[in-house]
Amino acid sequence: MSTTTATTATKTTTTRTTGRRGSILLGEHIPRITAVDTYDIRFPTSREMDGSDAMNPDPDYSAAYLVLRTDSGDGHEGHGFTFTIGRGNDVQVAAIEALRPHLIGRPVAELCADPGSVSRALIGDSQLRWLGPEKGVMHMAIGAVVNAVWDLAAKREGKPLWQLLADAEPEWLVSQVDFRYIADALTPEDALELLREGRHGAAERRAELLRRGYPAYTTSPGWLGYDDEKLIRLAKEAVADGFTQIKLKVGADLDDDIRRMRTARAAVGPYIRIAVDANQRWGVAETVEWTAALAEFEPYWLEEPTSPDDILGHAAVRRAVAPIKVATGEHVQNRIVFKQLLQAGAVDILQIDAARVGGVNENLAILLLAAKFGVPVCPHAGGVGLCELVQHLSMFDFVALSGTVQDRVIEYVDHLHEHFEDPVVVAAGRYAAPRSPGFSAQMRPGSIAEFSYPDGAFWAADLADRKEVTA
Amino acid sequence: MSTTTATTATKTTTTRTTGRRGSILLGEHIPRITAVDTYDIRFPTSREMDGSDAMNPDPDYSAAYLVLRTDSGDGHEGHGFTFTIGRGNDVQVAAIEALRPHLIGRPVAELCADPGSVSRALIGDSQLRWLGPEKGVMHMAIGAVVNAVWDLAAKREGKPLWQLLADAEPEWLVSQVDFRYIADALTPEDALELLREGRHGAAERRAELLRRGYPAYTTSPGWLGYDDEKLIRLAKEAVADGFTQIKLKVGADLDDDIRRMRTARAAVGPYIRIAVDANQRWGVAETVEWTAALAEFEPYWLEEPTSPDDILGHAAVRRAVAPIKVATGEHVQNRIVFKQLLQAGAVDILQIDAARVGGVNENLAILLLAAKFGVPVCPHAGGVGLCELVQHLSMFDFVALSGTVQDRVIEYVDHLHEHFEDPVVVAAGRYAAPRSPGFSAQMRPGSIAEFSYPDGAFWAADLADRKEVTA
Repeated sequence: MSTTTATTATKTTTTRTTGRRGSILLGEHIPRITAVDTYDIRFPTSREMDGSDAMNPDPDYSAAYLVLRTDSGDGHEGHGFTFTIGRGNDVQVAAIEALRPHLIGRPVAELCADPGSVSRALIGDSQLRWLGPEKGVMHMAIGAVVNAVWDLAAKREGKPLWQLLADAEPEWLVSQVDFRYIADALTPEDALELLREGRHGAAERRAELLRRGYPAYTTSPGWLGYDDEKLIRLAKEAVADGFTQIKLKVGADLDDDIRRMRTARAAVGPYIRIAVDANQRWGVAETVEWTAALAEFEPYWLEEPTSPDDILGHAAVRRAVAPIKVATGEHVQNRIVFKQLLQAGAVDILQIDAARVGGVNENLAILLLAAKFGVPVCPHAGGVGLCELVQHLSMFDFVALSGTVQDRVIEYVDHLHEHFEDPVVVAAGRYAAPRSPGFSAQMRPGSIAEFSYPDGAFWAADLADRKEVTA
Repeated sequence: MSTTTATTATKTTTTRTTGRRGSILLGEHIPRITAVDTYDIRFPTSREMDGSDAMNPDPDYSAAYLVLRTDSGDGHEGHGFTFTIGRGNDVQVAAIEALRPHLIGRPVAELCADPGSVSRALIGDSQLRWLGPEKGVMHMAIGAVVNAVWDLAAKREGKPLWQLLADAEPEWLVSQVDFRYIADALTPEDALELLREGRHGAAERRAELLRRGYPAYTTSPGWLGYDDEKLIRLAKEAVADGFTQIKLKVGADLDDDIRRMRTARAAVGPYIRIAVDANQRWGVAETVEWTAALAEFEPYWLEEPTSPDDILGHAAVRRAVAPIKVATGEHVQNRIVFKQLLQAGAVDILQIDAARVGGVNENLAILLLAAKFGVPVCPHAGGVGLCELVQHLSMFDFVALSGTVQDRVIEYVDHLHEHFEDPVVVAAGRYAAPRSPGFSAQMRPGSIAEFSYPDGAFWAADLADRKEVTA
């Protein structure tokens, strides 16, 4: 694994000039990508039971992280990552490294003027494609790289990504979308029309966004590993903090879930929305039974009841559990499955994730599909850095596509933001619009140094301790 | 990457006793898994244009290969692999290595008595699951490991895998299947009934299989990179060899496809089935148009017209192109997508692949689903070693599940069989039933040594040559 020392990741470091130099054309230096440095970063979150749910009892929130470096001399780098929950983060890093040859030597200006060209080149690699296609480890790696290109592009433009997208010409945005396999539901012409409509009133909405932010909901009270006392305390705090929706993890034990749901409802009162999240625990029949048992506490949406691959299963669930809404998406692999969830009437709420699919370009396709079908998007976030990324996509959607925040909320979890250079700001139950240039993807060099696995300061000490205990 | 020298992969080598030793219980030595050795093996097939199609112009057929070693002293090893087409084979090897901790130290007898326990442990790893779930690189790695366990189990039983499966009690086979996410279409009770019914006449079918083999079709004439003269010659040879079905790759250029299809039909006459395979090239509308243009030449089935993820797309295509049959499956990621293809009436023919899904256990689920829905299974093969593996699954299906070969054929491609210890035998258009113990998965040590990447003899010389050319 080719990694450099973590300190070279800081924005203030002089850009390195190793690797292939820009070629000389008509005497002009053309800045190029000179390095794709990768980092295996893991946070020991499993020790506090943060993030515990019915399928993920012990996550160590991690990032397979990359930095695109250039020889442009402007100090800008592109940062991107895949979120994982621990083991396998090294496999994810290896997948990012397999994409390196597509990047090294590419002219920076061309790349940033057309991130879609990177997306197409990576997805279209005729040999790597076999490992997906467009799903799992390889596709998440593509998402990390594509997002790093957008981070670099937004920094060079001097705009936060949401604003770069909201300011872009509809024709250019359409050129950034891969319509392959979705044109039966959304044509380029459909997309252009939606984006042109989205421009009406965009200036007013932009001002409103900057003034008021974007609505959030919080999952922090509801992790499965928390006891009732902690659930009550955190749920009340959430309401006091201005959130109008919280979320509870369910699916491990029905009696526990009934008690926790009753407890939460009593803690927040009748007017706060409580979503429940089963994290794929059930099949169709179990979902219907379990949800019926929780219905008296009026769950607002039922999230990930079953496999993210089961489009027809979600459609059957939705017919059975109405008026409780069905939500899914954080593990949905690509736009093709999102398309079908919409075509089959399988979801009330579509939950995009910034780092699961093939990056910003594919999320543009998904936001356009959702707009076409009139289904609200309520992004998945949490993990490490997912809040930082996904806020940009929802804010673009509000300003320049769907034009509304009606029934739309971005998930918020108050973990690990301190590791980012430009962390999210959530106050009074709303995300403040980021103002710094970029995709808010950049981790602090100190955090990278401490939590790099297995050689960072934290893990080196931890692994040495464990050796001692074993010895 | 922890690999041993290739020569230790030979069956005749004394089993190594490195790694964790069998523990001592009541004075008895319990044989355990001592090593999971991995190999990145690549064959330079792209140079001959073998295997070229509309989406895969330049495959280097490869295997992310593993060997399970034990300290049982009986000389048996478990061999398994994921098939890839070149770049990224290293990522696939890294994924297999991430599974190693689940294997090392496990008692061999327990493992082989219940390969389903391995399958469940690997799929259920609470952190690795995030990288799928049950799809792409991680899931293919699980398939490779699970298949290696079955190879070991069959060798220990002294039976070819198809026979081990056909001889097994229906109750035990049902215990090997993961019904999670498919129970809405196939319950354990359904599966038991199908397997009990499958036993009627099994002895006669087994005798017939040993006598006559299993029908095959051949893709060798139809690669996109071949010129018309080669197409005609190979198509005529296929008919002379006893094949009653051939397959043509299509999807790059319509005029070419019309000419090639006319050429092939003229070469083989009206009674030989010609399947066409678009390798995911199209969307729904293009599929319908393109297929209409080829209809006069009576293609038997239309394979992989569009994304393997597009269940509803395949259903729309099938409605539009009937009576031409729709076939897919080689890139279908898991049983959950196969279930929906059947539920949606999206396919006439289901094409399992031995090394794409989670191994034998998941393929049992898929064969049971196909039997329940009455859809014929015509496996995908070719690549490297895929014919060797998948024949066992179809032969089990014939002897002890569906009980028929009606409209069922296994793909055959005559590449790279010479690298296997127990290569397929195809004569008069039929696969002969393997008689050697195991899953026919074991590659010759000389082949592993020569084609290991990048240090095997072939690649070391090749990479040195390329350096010279560049210098």
